Amino acid sequence: MNPKFFELETKSSDCKARAGLLRINGTEIPTPVFMPVGTQGTVKAIEQRTLIELDARIILGNTYHLYLRPGTDVIEYFNGLHSFINWERPILTDSGGYQIFSLQELRKMDEDGVTFSSHIDGSKHFFSPESVIEIQRKLGSDIMMVLDECTPYPATKDATSKSAELSSRWASRAKNSFINSTSKYHKEQYLFSIGQGGVYSDLRKEYLLKMIDIGFDGYAIGGLSVGEPAELMYEMVDYSTDVLPVNKPRYLMGVGTPENILEAIERGIDMFDCVLPTRNARNGQLFTIKGKINIRNAQYKLRDEPIDDEIGIVTGKSYSLGYLRHLFIAGEILGLQIATQQNIAFYLWLVRTAREKIVSGDYLNWKKHILENFNNTQT
Amino acid sequence: MNPKFFELETKSSDCKARAGLLRINGTEIPTPVFMPVGTQGTVKAIEQRTLIELDARIILGNTYHLYLRPGTDVIEYFNGLHSFINWERPILTDSGGYQIFSLQELRKMDEDGVTFSSHIDGSKHFFSPESVIEIQRKLGSDIMMVLDECTPYPATKDATSKSAELSSRWASRAKNSFINSTSKYHKEQYLFSIGQGGVYSDLRKEYLLKMIDIGFDGYAIGGLSVGEPAELMYEMVDYSTDVLPVNKPRYLMGVGTPENILEAIERGIDMFDCVLPTRNARNGQLFTIKGKINIRNAQYKLRDEPIDDEIGIVTGKSYSLGYLRHLFIAGEILGLQIATQQNIAFYLWLVRTAREKIVSGDYLNWKKHILENFNNTQT
Repeated sequence: MNPKFFELETKSSDCKARAGLLRINGTEIPTPVFMPVGTQGTVKAIEQRTLIELDARIILGNTYHLYLRPGTDVIEYFNGLHSFINWERPILTDSGGYQIFSLQELRKMDEDGVTFSSHIDGSKHFFSPESVIEIQRKLGSDIMMVLDECTPYPATKDATSKSAELSSRWASRAKNSFINSTSKYHKEQYLFSIGQGGVYSDLRKEYLLKMIDIGFDGYAIGGLSVGEPAELMYEMVDYSTDVLPVNKPRYLMGVGTPENILEAIERGIDMFDCVLPTRNARNGQLFTIKGKINIRNAQYKLRDEPIDDEIGIVTGKSYSLGYLRHLFIAGEILGLQIATQQNIAFYLWLVRTAREKIVSGDYLNWKKHILENFNNTQT
Repeated sequence: MNPKFFELETKSSDCKARAGLLRINGTEIPTPVFMPVGTQGTVKAIEQRTLIELDARIILGNTYHLYLRPGTDVIEYFNGLHSFINWERPILTDSGGYQIFSLQELRKMDEDGVTFSSHIDGSKHFFSPESVIEIQRKLGSDIMMVLDECTPYPATKDATSKSAELSSRWASRAKNSFINSTSKYHKEQYLFSIGQGGVYSDLRKEYLLKMIDIGFDGYAIGGLSVGEPAELMYEMVDYSTDVLPVNKPRYLMGVGTPENILEAIERGIDMFDCVLPTRNARNGQLFTIKGKINIRNAQYKLRDEPIDDEIGIVTGKSYSLGYLRHLFIAGEILGLQIATQQNIAFYLWLVRTAREKIVSGDYLNWKKHILENFNNTQT
């Protein structure tokens, strides 16, 4: 594997936070990094060129969703996902495991893989660890994820162990499939595993060690932020990063609030994705340096200051809180567009600044200050 | 009145089409001009900076909608509509007459004005010719429209005459109110009348002459494109522009399709507004130089050419027809954003090119060629 795919630059002196650098197909991605979620081949309500303007370096796509619609064959016809959606920077595709296991009644699992019904038209489909690699080869994502079973919360230790055991057998099959296939679009593709183990630290350790033994370009921690208390999540993250190799990127999947992210960075996580900033934007919740804002609140009716002039994005400086409130109350699409830009800008600012503070050795102080702001604001 | 507000540059040799120039508070607006509609203080699904990028020179706002939400007082608090929505170029505000008379059951009219119930919360309100001027003074739009009664189609000649008579008395009161008030934001504000008269050419003439007698900065033709056959609309436009003064701009309200616009330009109209390009964009109908497209159609699934690379806008060149179709089928907001940009770009291109052809003396030939494209395409 490419020895320069990930380099560790600095480790915090007072905690496990780390500043690193991912180099993916010509794009440098400083870590910690936040990856906006573009489930169906678009980060909802924002143009690709605006993501570039906000300096998003890598975005997510979802294998399950793209396989169903527009279909892997369509994306292959367009020479891969990058070309289809007109996005040259890196893309990570989630394997779809999380989505399939969220379908509940619509799936049937065995050792081979999982049979599921499309949420769109009810049609039957089958995913295996191998087919998911094949699909991601056709999508041409830069980072591919193995198919896993996302263990629900709560689950008994026995059930959690059996589930994580299956995920690790699947990871091994995915790795074989990865080795025995090649990129279709003359780009390097990397493969990350997903560690399960629920809220049992010894299981987390056991199955991460199995993943490390198989060997991947990066290691994701899955099955967290699924309903367990935040403290338990932080504990699992802490255990996991103690086990994981220092020279590989660690990715905490689907997490989370600004607080979750800062706590996980403190515990040594490098990569994040979450629908929270974009989904909450569409519900009128804004993240700003001064704290959280529910823009529909009457208190913003006559507020003529910019939405957020500290982060310095165009829309945040151009429009007032009062105007944005009006757009939401009037049900105007422009409100969703502006709020989405603001929230993505905030999340990118958050991890960028976290990195600066790690490098300057002031991470914990800064984190404390930021979270005080967040906890003191009324939404 | 400012003698340089409107200047006629060229008249077509083979028809009544004209190329002119509006100068409004520092912005030059070549005519014929198309004004994108921003009813509630936003042109739906497009950012203000993108409208600038597409070189929209003037947009519409709606007095009725803005008065109800966010409310005239809110906009006055923000120092006018330009400041509230962050748009420095000119704004024309429709008086709200059309909207109120569309409410049907919700209104009661007398000589004084019209009492109506809000479509938002049912609250009762009263508009008079004077109050509508006062509201538009507070909005600070560059071009204000008088309150009129939009005569429905069909209507008897007697009813049409009575209605147009009322509109002309209201126009006179609006003019007085205009003269006896001043701009609140140190900008020049102009006042246009709205001529009614249904589909009766002698009534059109009679009431336009009354408007000319009162004297306005520009003359709108109202009450068309309300259900009458297109040929009848063109006939009324033709009569009207014969009556109207050469040195004042003529504005055909709420019209229309590309064909409607080209036919009206041929008959001497200078200004247009219509929700068609933006509304149809959100329904998946695109206007391109090659014709109309219903992007949801299966034939676009595997089409990898740009949406429209001839008009040369960023999104039209950046995304394929196949990707845009996917966004619509998947219900993604980005689809609405891209389609809106395309359709506004098309309408602006249409009138800009019409102007070039008027100046070069080739308008009728060009019009014929463009409409053939449009009529030959399948949607």
